[in-house]
Amino acid sequence: MLGSGNVATHLANALARAGHRIVQVYSRNIENASLLAHPLGAQAIDDLRHLDTVVDMVILAVSDDAIPSVAEQLPRTLSGVVVHTSGTTPMDVLQPFSRHGVFYPLQTFSKSKAVDFRSIPLALEASDDASMAQLEAVAKGISDAAFACDSAQRLALHVAAVFACNFTNHLYAVAAALLERNGLAFDLIKPLVMETAQKIMALDPAQVQTGPAVRGDQKTMDKHLEFLKKDPEWQRLYGLLSEGIQATRNKR
Amino acid sequence: MLGSGNVATHLANALARAGHRIVQVYSRNIENASLLAHPLGAQAIDDLRHLDTVVDMVILAVSDDAIPSVAEQLPRTLSGVVVHTSGTTPMDVLQPFSRHGVFYPLQTFSKSKAVDFRSIPLALEASDDASMAQLEAVAKGISDAAFACDSAQRLALHVAAVFACNFTNHLYAVAAALLERNGLAFDLIKPLVMETAQKIMALDPAQVQTGPAVRGDQKTMDKHLEFLKKDPEWQRLYGLLSEGIQATRNKR
Repeated sequence: MLGSGNVATHLANALARAGHRIVQVYSRNIENASLLAHPLGAQAIDDLRHLDTVVDMVILAVSDDAIPSVAEQLPRTLSGVVVHTSGTTPMDVLQPFSRHGVFYPLQTFSKSKAVDFRSIPLALEASDDASMAQLEAVAKGISDAAFACDSAQRLALHVAAVFACNFTNHLYAVAAALLERNGLAFDLIKPLVMETAQKIMALDPAQVQTGPAVRGDQKTMDKHLEFLKKDPEWQRLYGLLSEGIQATRNKR
Repeated sequence: MLGSGNVATHLANALARAGHRIVQVYSRNIENASLLAHPLGAQAIDDLRHLDTVVDMVILAVSDDAIPSVAEQLPRTLSGVVVHTSGTTPMDVLQPFSRHGVFYPLQTFSKSKAVDFRSIPLALEASDDASMAQLEAVAKGISDAAFACDSAQRLALHVAAVFACNFTNHLYAVAAALLERNGLAFDLIKPLVMETAQKIMALDPAQVQTGPAVRGDQKTMDKHLEFLKKDPEWQRLYGLLSEGIQATRNKR
């Protein structure tokens, strides 16, 4: 396991629980490598020249920016399949390795929060059929939602995930700040957040859009924009998202 | 009950289940009034001159725009408390009535989807103590989350709800469209949506922000912006939300 961040941590633990042996954990920072490696009985390394090359799989769970430089340092003679876990990086950055692929878990990981890996979609791509079969076997051991996905689709999936997860979380943060400033508890809005997420488990989000923008209630929107006048960035966001809702409505 | 839309429907049904008698349902469209009124044993009316004035409570569950004109048509001699259900409209639009208030359920209602009213926060405001006591008694019969809230706080609450619910749902719709275009099922992203919502039940959203923007991963953001180049509106949204995430991070 190359990396010791959120993805590396959750993935290494899920693999270990499924019976796989984590041989080594690499991080530029040996303490971070040790924190992940030692509970799993793995060796911590901070120098890729110490990499054990006789392994079934080498997983680059490092930041997208670091993938090329880490890949550069790996021996070209690796017999195992070399994969990265990135949504956005094309598979072919790993072209130098005869067997390569992608093992992309579509989930938001925080180190402090446990996740049920079995429900996490794993997007798989491989250079050849044997590698794909290997990735599928490993994936099925930890998740019920593994699927084949080419690099172009994976990019779309990652962008969609940024909208549905990262950006959504930012809107929660804006709501939390607005409430706090006005002496209201963030708890008040939690049932609404859950209901909004639960609603789209069964229904098309464009079909269940509610609120002033989709109703074309310009007076309410004007009051809200006026309320936000001291926060020009949130005001712009309010305007742009409201326009987006109206454009979606008009397309249907 | 004046109105027959989503709020009127869910609220009238919750009140009836709690043992309150719905006397009349008003709508400009008599068929809509009948659809809500008849299963509840109430009378449907489409002319406010037929309003039964001897009731404990008159609820204006109409669109914000319609509140002034409906209020205008009500006899000033109503003995009951006259309330509206709007997040954004100040209480004092009901000033002409000696007893008035606000009964604002903070939830997103769709007619087709049942909601558990007991967990819905109800923001209450009233012109006088007796009316407040009456609203509290009614509210507690249907919800475990009633609370007092002045008009300024209610506006903040509504704006926060638009961010956390309406805008969030629009981001789900954008994600759904991106996936569909690329031959991917919307189902793939559902575990991520639930995890993102569930995470903030216990944790501060600003603290658990993930994704390329909070990591400062400009290369990934550039790839995503390039991917969105044929959808300039979504591209602007991506840029503005990413900037917002970075501004929030820098403030902490």
